[in-house]
Amino acid sequence: MSSKKLIFLTNDDSYRSKGFAAAIEVARQFGRVIAIAPETPQSGMSQAITIHNPLRLNKVREEEGVLVYSLNGTPVDCVKMAFDHLFVDEKIDLVISGINHGSNAAVNVLYSGTMGAAIEAAFYNIPSIGLSLTDHDLDANFEGAVKYGSQIVKAVLDNDLPRPLCLNVNVPDIPCNEIKGIRIARQTRGYWREEFFKRTDPHGKDYFWLTGAFSNAEPEAEESDEWALANGYVAVVPVQVDLTAYNQMEHLKVLL
Amino acid sequence: MSSKKLIFLTNDDSYRSKGFAAAIEVARQFGRVIAIAPETPQSGMSQAITIHNPLRLNKVREEEGVLVYSLNGTPVDCVKMAFDHLFVDEKIDLVISGINHGSNAAVNVLYSGTMGAAIEAAFYNIPSIGLSLTDHDLDANFEGAVKYGSQIVKAVLDNDLPRPLCLNVNVPDIPCNEIKGIRIARQTRGYWREEFFKRTDPHGKDYFWLTGAFSNAEPEAEESDEWALANGYVAVVPVQVDLTAYNQMEHLKVLL
Repeated sequence: MSSKKLIFLTNDDSYRSKGFAAAIEVARQFGRVIAIAPETPQSGMSQAITIHNPLRLNKVREEEGVLVYSLNGTPVDCVKMAFDHLFVDEKIDLVISGINHGSNAAVNVLYSGTMGAAIEAAFYNIPSIGLSLTDHDLDANFEGAVKYGSQIVKAVLDNDLPRPLCLNVNVPDIPCNEIKGIRIARQTRGYWREEFFKRTDPHGKDYFWLTGAFSNAEPEAEESDEWALANGYVAVVPVQVDLTAYNQMEHLKVLL
Repeated sequence: MSSKKLIFLTNDDSYRSKGFAAAIEVARQFGRVIAIAPETPQSGMSQAITIHNPLRLNKVREEEGVLVYSLNGTPVDCVKMAFDHLFVDEKIDLVISGINHGSNAAVNVLYSGTMGAAIEAAFYNIPSIGLSLTDHDLDANFEGAVKYGSQIVKAVLDNDLPRPLCLNVNVPDIPCNEIKGIRIARQTRGYWREEFFKRTDPHGKDYFWLTGAFSNAEPEAEESDEWALANGYVAVVPVQVDLTAYNQMEHLKVLL
Protein backbone atom coordinates (compact mmCIF):
# COMPACT_ATOMS: atom_id res chain seq x y z
CA MET A 1 0.00 0.00 0.00
CA SER A 2 1.66 3.22 -1.12
CA SER A 3 -0.74 6.02 -0.14
CA LYS A 4 0.09 8.65 2.48
CA LYS A 5 3.77 8.61 1.78
CA LEU A 6 6.13 11.57 2.08
CA ILE A 7 8.19 12.21 -1.05
CA PHE A 8 11.03 14.69 -1.41
CA LEU A 9 11.61 16.15 -4.87
CA THR A 10 14.49 17.95 -6.46
CA ASN A 11 15.92 18.25 -9.97
CA ASP A 12 18.62 20.04 -11.96
CA ASP A 13 16.54 22.07 -14.41
CA SER A 14 15.16 24.41 -11.69
CA TYR A 15 11.81 24.50 -9.93
CA ARG A 16 10.32 26.32 -12.93
CA SER A 17 10.84 23.48 -15.43
CA LYS A 18 8.05 21.50 -17.03
CA GLY A 19 9.77 18.28 -15.95
CA PHE A 20 9.65 19.36 -12.31
CA ALA A 21 5.89 19.93 -12.62
CA ALA A 22 5.67 16.43 -14.10
CA ALA A 23 7.59 15.03 -11.11
CA ILE A 24 5.08 16.69 -8.76
CA GLU A 25 2.30 15.03 -10.78
CA VAL A 26 3.98 11.65 -10.26
CA ALA A 27 4.70 12.13 -6.57
CA ARG A 28 1.42 13.59 -5.33
CA GLN A 29 -0.45 10.43 -6.30
CA PHE A 30 1.34 8.72 -3.42
CA GLY A 31 1.03 11.27 -0.65
CA ARG A 32 2.56 14.53 0.51
CA VAL A 33 5.25 16.27 -1.54
CA ILE A 34 8.04 18.48 -0.19
CA ALA A 35 10.71 19.89 -2.45
CA ILE A 36 13.81 22.02 -2.70
CA ALA A 37 14.83 22.61 -6.30
CA PRO A 38 17.54 24.82 -7.77
CA GLU A 39 16.75 28.47 -8.45
CA THR A 40 18.51 28.26 -11.83
CA PRO A 41 19.31 25.42 -14.27
CA GLN A 42 22.10 23.15 -13.00
CA SER A 43 22.50 20.68 -15.85
CA GLY A 44 25.91 19.04 -15.90
CA MET A 45 26.61 19.91 -12.28
CA SER A 46 27.23 16.29 -11.31
CA GLN A 47 27.60 15.88 -7.54
CA ALA A 48 28.96 19.42 -7.08
CA ILE A 49 28.49 21.24 -3.78
CA THR A 50 28.67 24.96 -3.07
CA ILE A 51 31.54 25.80 -0.76
CA HIS A 52 32.53 29.40 -1.48
CA ASN A 53 29.13 31.07 -1.96
CA PRO A 54 26.23 31.72 0.40
CA LEU A 55 23.01 29.80 -0.16
CA ARG A 56 19.58 31.43 -0.16
CA LEU A 57 16.35 29.54 0.36
CA ASN A 58 12.91 30.79 -0.77
CA LYS A 59 9.44 29.32 -0.49
CA VAL A 60 7.98 29.37 -4.01
CA ARG A 61 4.81 27.25 -3.78
CA GLU A 62 2.55 26.03 -1.00
CA GLU A 63 -0.77 24.32 -1.47
CA GLU A 64 -2.57 21.26 -0.15
CA GLY A 65 0.02 18.48 -0.04
CA VAL A 66 2.72 20.30 -2.03
CA LEU A 67 5.43 22.53 -0.55
CA VAL A 68 8.24 23.80 -2.78
CA TYR A 69 11.36 25.81 -1.95
CA SER A 70 14.04 27.08 -4.28
CA LEU A 71 17.74 27.26 -3.45
CA ASN A 72 20.46 29.15 -5.34
CA GLY A 73 22.74 26.11 -5.33
CA THR A 74 23.35 22.74 -6.90
CA PRO A 75 21.03 19.73 -6.79
CA VAL A 76 23.23 18.14 -4.11
CA ASP A 77 23.03 21.37 -2.06
CA CYS A 78 19.23 21.00 -2.25
CA VAL A 79 19.35 17.46 -0.87
CA LYS A 80 21.73 18.44 1.93
CA MET A 81 19.65 21.50 2.81
CA ALA A 82 16.54 19.32 2.99
CA PHE A 83 17.90 16.44 5.05
CA ASP A 84 20.30 18.29 7.34
CA HIS A 85 18.34 21.50 7.86
CA LEU A 86 14.88 22.32 6.52
CA PHE A 87 13.17 18.93 6.66
CA VAL A 88 15.31 17.30 9.33
CA ASP A 89 12.28 16.27 11.39
CA GLU A 90 10.33 14.74 8.49
CA LYS A 91 10.33 11.01 7.79
CA ILE A 92 10.90 10.93 4.06
CA ASP A 93 10.00 7.70 2.26
CA LEU A 94 11.44 8.39 -1.17
CA VAL A 95 13.44 10.94 -3.16
CA ILE A 96 12.63 11.67 -6.79
CA SER A 97 15.06 13.78 -8.80
CA GLY A 98 13.74 15.08 -12.12
CA ILE A 99 12.00 14.65 -14.38
CA ASN A 100 15.08 15.65 -16.31
CA HIS A 101 14.88 17.23 -19.76
CA GLY A 102 17.44 15.01 -21.51
CA SER A 103 19.00 11.57 -21.20
CA ASN A 104 21.05 10.54 -18.19
CA ALA A 105 21.79 7.09 -19.57
CA ALA A 106 25.28 5.62 -20.02
CA VAL A 107 28.14 7.78 -18.69
CA ASN A 108 25.80 10.76 -18.38
CA VAL A 109 25.10 9.44 -14.89
CA LEU A 110 28.48 10.89 -13.88
CA TYR A 111 27.89 14.42 -15.23
CA SER A 112 24.22 14.68 -14.36
CA GLY A 113 22.99 17.05 -11.67
CA THR A 114 19.78 15.03 -11.54
CA MET A 115 21.69 11.85 -10.73
CA GLY A 116 24.08 13.74 -8.42
CA ALA A 117 21.08 14.55 -6.23
CA ALA A 118 19.78 10.96 -6.43
CA ILE A 119 23.19 9.57 -5.42
CA GLU A 120 23.39 12.08 -2.57
CA ALA A 121 20.01 10.88 -1.26
CA ALA A 122 21.41 7.35 -1.11
CA PHE A 123 23.98 8.57 1.44
CA TYR A 124 21.03 9.45 3.68
CA ASN A 125 19.81 5.87 3.26
CA ILE A 126 16.59 6.99 1.57
CA PRO A 127 15.56 5.19 -1.64
CA SER A 128 16.01 7.51 -4.60
CA ILE A 129 14.94 7.58 -8.21
CA GLY A 130 16.47 9.81 -10.86
CA LEU A 131 13.89 10.19 -13.63
CA SER A 132 14.86 11.45 -17.08
CA LEU A 133 13.24 11.81 -20.47
CA THR A 134 15.50 11.62 -23.53
CA ASP A 135 14.29 14.97 -24.88
CA HIS A 136 16.00 18.29 -24.07
CA ASP A 137 13.09 20.40 -25.31
CA LEU A 138 11.80 22.85 -22.68
CA ASP A 139 8.29 21.89 -23.78
CA ALA A 140 8.93 18.13 -23.97
CA ASN A 141 6.01 15.71 -23.64
CA PHE A 142 6.29 13.94 -20.27
CA GLU A 143 3.32 11.61 -20.69
CA GLY A 144 5.39 8.42 -20.96
CA ALA A 145 7.78 9.53 -18.21
CA VAL A 146 4.86 10.22 -15.87
CA LYS A 147 3.21 6.88 -16.63
CA TYR A 148 6.29 4.69 -16.24
CA GLY A 149 7.76 6.89 -13.51
CA SER A 150 4.58 6.36 -11.50
CA GLN A 151 4.77 2.60 -12.03
CA ILE A 152 8.37 2.50 -10.79
CA VAL A 153 7.68 4.80 -7.83
CA LYS A 154 4.78 2.58 -6.78
CA ALA A 155 6.91 -0.56 -6.97
CA VAL A 156 9.71 1.03 -4.92
CA LEU A 157 7.26 2.26 -2.27
CA ASP A 158 5.46 -1.09 -2.11
CA ASN A 159 8.60 -3.23 -1.84
CA ASP A 160 11.29 -3.04 0.79
CA LEU A 161 14.23 -3.21 -1.60
CA PRO A 162 17.80 -3.50 -0.25
CA ARG A 163 19.54 -0.18 0.44
CA PRO A 164 21.31 1.92 -0.59
CA LEU A 165 18.85 2.01 -3.46
CA CYS A 166 19.40 4.57 -6.21
CA LEU A 167 17.80 4.06 -9.61
CA ASN A 168 18.75 5.79 -12.83
CA VAL A 169 15.53 5.70 -14.88
CA ASN A 170 15.50 6.93 -18.47
CA VAL A 171 12.37 7.08 -20.62
CA PRO A 172 12.60 7.13 -24.42
CA ASP A 173 11.22 10.12 -26.29
CA ILE A 174 8.55 8.23 -28.24
CA PRO A 175 4.76 8.29 -27.98
CA CYS A 176 3.65 6.77 -24.68
CA ASN A 177 1.67 3.97 -26.31
CA GLU A 178 4.75 2.87 -28.28
CA ILE A 179 6.87 2.28 -25.18
CA LYS A 180 7.35 -1.47 -24.89
CA GLY A 181 7.87 -1.63 -21.13
CA ILE A 182 10.68 -1.50 -18.57
CA ARG A 183 14.09 -3.18 -18.76
CA ILE A 184 16.57 -3.53 -15.91
CA ALA A 185 19.85 -2.58 -17.55
CA ARG A 186 23.49 -1.77 -16.88
CA GLN A 187 25.36 1.44 -17.66
CA THR A 188 26.42 1.46 -21.32
CA ARG A 189 30.15 1.72 -21.98
CA GLY A 190 31.06 4.73 -24.07
CA TYR A 191 32.24 8.30 -23.81
CA TRP A 192 31.61 11.83 -24.96
CA ARG A 193 33.84 13.39 -27.53
CA GLU A 194 33.63 17.15 -27.42
CA GLU A 195 33.81 19.83 -29.99
CA PHE A 196 34.85 23.29 -28.89
CA PHE A 197 33.21 25.96 -31.00
CA LYS A 198 35.46 28.97 -31.16
CA ARG A 199 34.00 32.46 -31.31
CA THR A 200 35.44 35.94 -30.97
CA ASP A 201 33.82 38.48 -28.67
CA PRO A 202 33.33 42.17 -29.66
CA HIS A 203 36.57 42.97 -27.81
CA GLY A 204 38.56 40.65 -30.07
CA LYS A 205 39.06 37.94 -27.45
CA ASP A 206 38.44 34.27 -28.25
CA TYR A 207 36.08 32.06 -26.32
CA PHE A 208 34.73 28.53 -26.69
CA TRP A 209 31.43 26.69 -26.33
CA LEU A 210 31.69 23.10 -25.15
CA THR A 211 29.51 20.76 -27.18
CA GLY A 212 29.80 17.09 -27.96
CA ALA A 213 28.38 13.77 -29.02
CA PHE A 214 28.12 10.47 -27.16
CA SER A 215 29.98 7.56 -28.67
CA ASN A 216 28.43 4.21 -27.75
CA ALA A 217 31.19 1.60 -27.40
CA GLU A 218 28.72 -1.31 -27.46
CA PRO A 219 25.59 -0.49 -29.47
CA GLU A 220 24.69 -4.19 -29.75
CA ALA A 221 24.74 -4.88 -26.00
CA GLU A 222 21.14 -5.82 -25.21
CA GLU A 223 21.73 -5.56 -21.47
CA SER A 224 22.82 -1.88 -21.73
CA ASP A 225 20.62 1.13 -20.99
CA GLU A 226 21.27 2.72 -24.39
CA TRP A 227 20.07 -0.43 -26.15
CA ALA A 228 16.89 -0.46 -24.07
CA LEU A 229 16.16 3.19 -24.97
CA ALA A 230 16.99 2.72 -28.65
CA ASN A 231 14.58 -0.23 -28.74
CA GLY A 232 11.62 1.49 -27.13
CA TYR A 233 12.06 0.47 -23.49
CA VAL A 234 12.31 2.44 -20.28
CA ALA A 235 15.82 1.72 -18.90
CA VAL A 236 16.37 1.25 -15.16
CA VAL A 237 19.98 1.06 -13.93
CA PRO A 238 20.65 0.50 -10.22
CA VAL A 239 23.46 2.84 -9.17
CA GLN A 240 26.14 2.21 -6.56
CA VAL A 241 28.11 4.75 -4.55
CA ASP A 242 31.24 2.68 -3.91
CA LEU A 243 33.59 3.56 -6.76
CA THR A 244 36.28 1.07 -5.73
CA ALA A 245 37.46 -0.99 -8.71
CA TYR A 246 37.90 -4.19 -6.69
CA ASN A 247 39.06 -6.23 -9.68
CA GLN A 248 42.06 -3.93 -10.10
CA MET A 249 43.36 -4.16 -6.56
CA GLU A 250 45.55 -7.23 -7.14
CA HIS A 251 47.32 -5.55 -10.07
CA LEU A 252 48.35 -2.61 -7.90
CA LYS A 253 50.93 -4.54 -5.89
CA VAL A 254 53.51 -3.06 -8.27
CA LEU A 255 52.97 0.27 -6.49
CA LEU A 256 54.22 -1.05 -3.16
CA MET B 1 62.09 2.96 -18.09
CA SER B 2 59.98 6.02 -17.42
CA SER B 3 61.98 8.97 -18.77
CA LYS B 4 60.84 11.09 -21.72
CA LYS B 5 57.16 10.66 -20.98
CA LEU B 6 54.43 13.21 -21.67
CA ILE B 7 52.29 14.00 -18.64
CA PHE B 8 49.14 16.10 -18.60
CA LEU B 9 48.31 17.95 -15.38
CA THR B 10 45.20 19.55 -14.02
CA ASN B 11 43.71 20.14 -10.57
CA ASP B 12 40.78 21.81 -8.83
CA ASP B 13 42.55 24.42 -6.70
CA SER B 14 43.60 26.53 -9.75
CA TYR B 15 46.91 26.83 -11.54
CA ARG B 16 48.12 29.23 -8.85
CA SER B 17 47.97 26.74 -5.98
CA LYS B 18 51.00 25.39 -4.13
CA GLY B 19 49.74 21.85 -4.73
CA PHE B 20 49.76 22.41 -8.49
CA ALA B 21 53.39 23.52 -8.30
CA ALA B 22 54.09 20.33 -6.34
CA ALA B 23 52.40 18.27 -9.09
CA ILE B 24 54.67 19.91 -11.68
CA GLU B 25 57.65 18.97 -9.48
CA VAL B 26 56.46 15.34 -9.49
CA ALA B 27 55.71 15.18 -13.20
CA ARG B 28 58.77 16.89 -14.67
CA GLN B 29 61.06 14.18 -13.29
CA PHE B 30 59.54 11.86 -15.88
CA GLY B 31 59.50 13.99 -19.00
CA ARG B 32 57.56 16.82 -20.59
CA VAL B 33 54.64 18.45 -18.77
CA ILE B 34 51.58 20.03 -20.38
CA ALA B 35 48.72 21.39 -18.31
CA ILE B 36 45.35 23.08 -18.32
CA ALA B 37 44.22 24.03 -14.84
CA PRO B 38 41.22 26.04 -13.66
CA GLU B 39 41.50 29.83 -13.52
CA THR B 40 39.76 29.86 -10.12
CA PRO B 41 39.32 27.33 -7.28
CA GLN B 42 36.89 24.52 -8.20
CA SER B 43 36.81 22.45 -5.01
CA GLY B 44 33.66 20.36 -4.69
CA MET B 45 32.87 20.62 -8.41
CA SER B 46 32.76 16.85 -8.85
CA GLN B 47 32.50 15.85 -12.51
CA ALA B 48 30.66 19.06 -13.46
CA ILE B 49 30.92 20.45 -16.99
CA THR B 50 30.23 23.96 -18.22
CA ILE B 51 27.30 24.07 -20.61
CA HIS B 52 25.81 27.55 -20.40
CA ASN B 53 28.92 29.74 -20.18
CA PRO B 54 31.73 30.45 -22.63
CA LEU B 55 35.19 29.09 -21.85
CA ARG B 56 38.34 31.15 -22.10
CA LEU B 57 41.81 29.67 -22.39
CA ASN B 58 45.03 31.52 -21.50
CA LYS B 59 48.68 30.50 -21.61
CA VAL B 60 50.09 31.24 -18.15
CA ARG B 61 53.53 29.58 -18.09
CA GLU B 62 55.95 28.31 -20.70
CA GLU B 63 59.48 27.14 -20.05
CA GLU B 64 61.70 24.20 -20.95
CA GLY B 65 59.51 21.12 -20.63
CA VAL B 66 56.57 22.81 -18.89
CA LEU B 67 53.60 24.41 -20.64
CA VAL B 68 50.61 25.59 -18.57
CA TYR B 69 47.27 27.02 -19.64
CA SER B 70 44.41 28.23 -17.48
CA LEU B 71 40.71 27.79 -18.28
CA ASN B 72 37.75 29.53 -16.66
CA GLY B 73 35.93 26.23 -16.22
CA THR B 74 35.76 23.07 -14.17
CA PRO B 75 38.48 20.42 -13.87
CA VAL B 76 36.54 18.19 -16.28
CA ASP B 77 36.32 21.08 -18.76
CA CYS B 78 40.13 21.29 -18.56
CA VAL B 79 40.51 17.59 -19.43
CA LYS B 80 38.04 17.83 -22.31
CA MET B 81 39.69 20.99 -23.64
CA ALA B 82 43.07 19.25 -23.53
CA PHE B 83 42.14 15.94 -25.15
CA ASP B 84 39.54 17.10 -27.65
CA HIS B 85 41.02 20.45 -28.65
CA LEU B 86 44.32 21.91 -27.47
CA PHE B 87 46.49 18.81 -27.16
CA VAL B 88 44.62 16.54 -29.53
CA ASP B 89 47.80 15.65 -31.47
CA GLU B 90 49.91 14.85 -28.42
CA LYS B 91 50.44 11.29 -27.19
CA ILE B 92 49.82 11.64 -23.48
CA ASP B 93 51.15 8.86 -21.25
CA LEU B 94 49.60 9.84 -17.94
CA VAL B 95 47.25 12.34 -16.31
CA ILE B 96 47.91 13.69 -12.83
CA SER B 97 45.19 15.70 -11.11
CA GLY B 98 46.30 17.63 -8.03
CA ILE B 99 48.06 17.78 -5.75
CA ASN B 100 44.84 18.61 -3.93
CA HIS B 101 44.79 20.67 -0.77
CA GLY B 102 42.56 18.39 1.32
CA SER B 103 41.49 14.76 1.52
CA ASN B 104 39.62 13.03 -1.29
CA ALA B 105 39.36 9.75 0.57
CA ALA B 106 36.09 7.90 1.25
CA VAL B 107 32.97 9.44 -0.34
CA ASN B 108 34.89 12.64 -1.09
CA VAL B 109 35.81 10.94 -4.36
CA LEU B 110 32.26 11.76 -5.53
CA TYR B 111 32.35 15.49 -4.70
CA SER B 112 35.95 16.12 -5.64
CA GLY B 113 36.85 18.22 -8.65
CA THR B 114 40.33 16.67 -8.52
CA MET B 115 38.86 13.18 -8.86
CA GLY B 116 36.27 14.36 -11.38
CA ALA B 117 39.16 15.26 -13.69
CA ALA B 118 40.93 11.95 -13.00
CA ILE B 119 37.76 9.97 -13.77
CA GLU B 120 37.25 11.98 -16.95
CA ALA B 121 40.77 11.10 -18.10
CA ALA B 122 39.87 7.42 -17.74
CA PHE B 123 37.18 7.91 -20.41
CA TYR B 124 39.99 8.87 -22.77
CA ASN B 125 41.69 5.59 -21.86
CA ILE B 126 44.70 7.36 -20.37
CA PRO B 127 45.96 6.20 -16.97
CA SER B 128 45.17 8.83 -14.37
CA ILE B 129 46.18 9.56 -10.81
CA GLY B 130 44.33 11.92 -8.49
CA LEU B 131 46.81 13.04 -5.83
CA SER B 132 45.63 14.63 -2.59
CA LEU B 133 47.17 15.69 0.71
CA THR B 134 44.92 15.63 3.77
CA ASP B 135 45.65 19.27 4.62
CA HIS B 136 43.51 22.17 3.36
CA ASP B 137 46.10 24.82 4.25
CA LEU B 138 47.05 27.02 1.28
CA ASP B 139 50.66 26.72 2.46
CA ALA B 140 50.53 22.97 3.20
CA ASN B 141 53.76 20.94 3.19
CA PHE B 142 53.76 18.70 0.11
CA GLU B 143 57.03 16.87 0.83
CA GLY B 144 55.39 13.51 1.55
CA ALA B 145 52.91 13.88 -1.29
CA VAL B 146 55.73 14.63 -3.74
CA LYS B 147 57.82 11.69 -2.51
CA TYR B 148 55.07 9.05 -2.57
CA GLY B 149 53.34 10.61 -5.56
CA SER B 150 56.58 10.26 -7.51
CA GLN B 151 56.91 6.62 -6.46
CA ILE B 152 53.37 5.86 -7.63
CA VAL B 153 53.76 7.78 -10.90
CA LYS B 154 56.96 5.85 -11.65
CA ALA B 155 55.25 2.50 -10.99
CA VAL B 156 52.29 3.39 -13.21
CA LEU B 157 54.59 4.55 -16.04
CA ASP B 158 56.83 1.49 -15.73
CA ASN B 159 54.02 -1.08 -15.66
CA ASP B 160 51.35 -1.62 -18.27
CA LEU B 161 48.42 -1.85 -15.85
CA PRO B 162 44.94 -2.81 -17.11
CA ARG B 163 42.77 0.10 -18.24
CA PRO B 164 40.71 2.06 -17.49
CA LEU B 165 43.12 2.91 -14.68
CA CYS B 166 42.21 5.72 -12.31
CA LEU B 167 43.82 5.92 -8.90
CA ASN B 168 42.61 7.95 -5.95
CA VAL B 169 45.80 8.59 -3.94
CA ASN B 170 45.62 10.31 -0.56
CA VAL B 171 48.67 11.19 1.50
CA PRO B 172 48.42 11.75 5.27
CA ASP B 173 49.36 15.13 6.66
CA ILE B 174 52.25 13.93 8.82
CA PRO B 175 56.01 14.46 8.51
CA CYS B 176 57.33 12.66 5.46
CA ASN B 177 59.67 10.42 7.44
CA GLU B 178 56.77 9.20 9.59
CA ILE B 179 54.76 7.89 6.63
CA LYS B 180 54.83 4.09 6.88
CA GLY B 181 54.35 3.34 3.20
CA ILE B 182 51.57 2.72 0.68
CA ARG B 183 48.41 0.64 1.15
CA ILE B 184 46.03 -0.46 -1.60
CA ALA B 185 42.62 0.26 -0.08
CA ARG B 186 38.92 0.45 -0.82
CA GLN B 187 36.62 3.46 -0.47
CA THR B 188 35.52 3.86 3.16
CA ARG B 189 31.79 3.70 3.81
CA GLY B 190 30.44 6.83 5.43
CA TYR B 191 28.78 10.12 4.68
CA TRP B 192 28.91 13.83 5.31
CA ARG B 193 26.44 15.42 7.68
CA GLU B 194 26.14 19.11 7.03
CA GLU B 195 25.56 22.08 9.21
CA PHE B 196 24.07 25.18 7.63
CA PHE B 197 25.30 28.32 9.32
CA LYS B 198 22.64 30.97 9.06
CA ARG B 199 23.60 34.62 8.70
CA THR B 200 21.69 37.79 7.89
CA ASP B 201 22.95 40.18 5.26
CA PRO B 202 22.93 44.01 5.71
CA HIS B 203 19.62 44.08 3.81
CA GLY B 204 17.95 41.82 6.36
CA LYS B 205 17.87 38.74 4.14
CA ASP B 206 18.99 35.35 5.46
CA TYR B 207 21.65 33.23 3.85
CA PHE B 208 23.48 30.01 4.72
CA TRP B 209 26.99 28.62 4.59
CA LEU B 210 27.25 24.90 3.92
CA THR B 211 29.72 23.19 6.24
CA GLY B 212 29.94 19.65 7.54
CA ALA B 213 31.81 16.76 9.03
CA PHE B 214 32.55 13.30 7.66
CA SER B 215 31.10 10.40 9.59
CA ASN B 216 33.10 7.18 9.14
CA ALA B 217 30.73 4.21 9.20
CA GLU B 218 33.56 1.70 9.65
CA PRO B 219 36.55 3.23 11.49
CA GLU B 220 37.96 -0.24 12.29
CA ALA B 221 38.02 -1.46 8.67
CA GLU B 222 41.73 -2.00 7.98
CA GLU B 223 41.14 -2.34 4.24
CA SER B 224 39.56 1.13 3.99
CA ASP B 225 41.31 4.27 2.81
CA GLU B 226 40.42 6.24 5.95
CA TRP B 227 42.03 3.55 8.13
CA ALA B 228 45.20 3.68 6.05
CA LEU B 229 45.42 7.47 6.40
CA ALA B 230 44.64 7.42 10.13
CA ASN B 231 47.43 4.89 10.62
CA GLY B 232 50.14 6.74 8.73
CA TYR B 233 49.88 5.16 5.29
CA VAL B 234 49.38 6.60 1.82
CA ALA B 235 46.02 5.21 0.60
CA VAL B 236 45.57 4.14 -3.03
CA VAL B 237 42.03 3.28 -4.18
CA PRO B 238 41.50 2.12 -7.77
CA VAL B 239 38.39 3.87 -9.11
CA GLN B 240 35.85 2.52 -11.57
CA VAL B 241 33.58 4.46 -13.90
CA ASP B 242 30.76 1.91 -14.22
CA LEU B 243 28.28 2.86 -11.49
CA THR B 244 25.97 -0.11 -12.13
CA ALA B 245 25.07 -1.87 -8.88
CA TYR B 246 25.09 -5.35 -10.43
CA ASN B 247 24.21 -7.09 -7.17
CA GLN B 248 20.90 -5.20 -7.05
CA MET B 249 19.69 -6.09 -10.52
CA GLU B 250 17.94 -9.31 -9.50
CA HIS B 251 15.93 -7.50 -6.81
CA LEU B 252 14.51 -5.07 -9.37
CA LYS B 253 12.25 -7.59 -11.06
CA VAL B 254 9.46 -6.15 -8.90
CA LEU B 255 9.55 -3.08 -11.13
CA LEU B 256 8.54 -5.00 -14.24
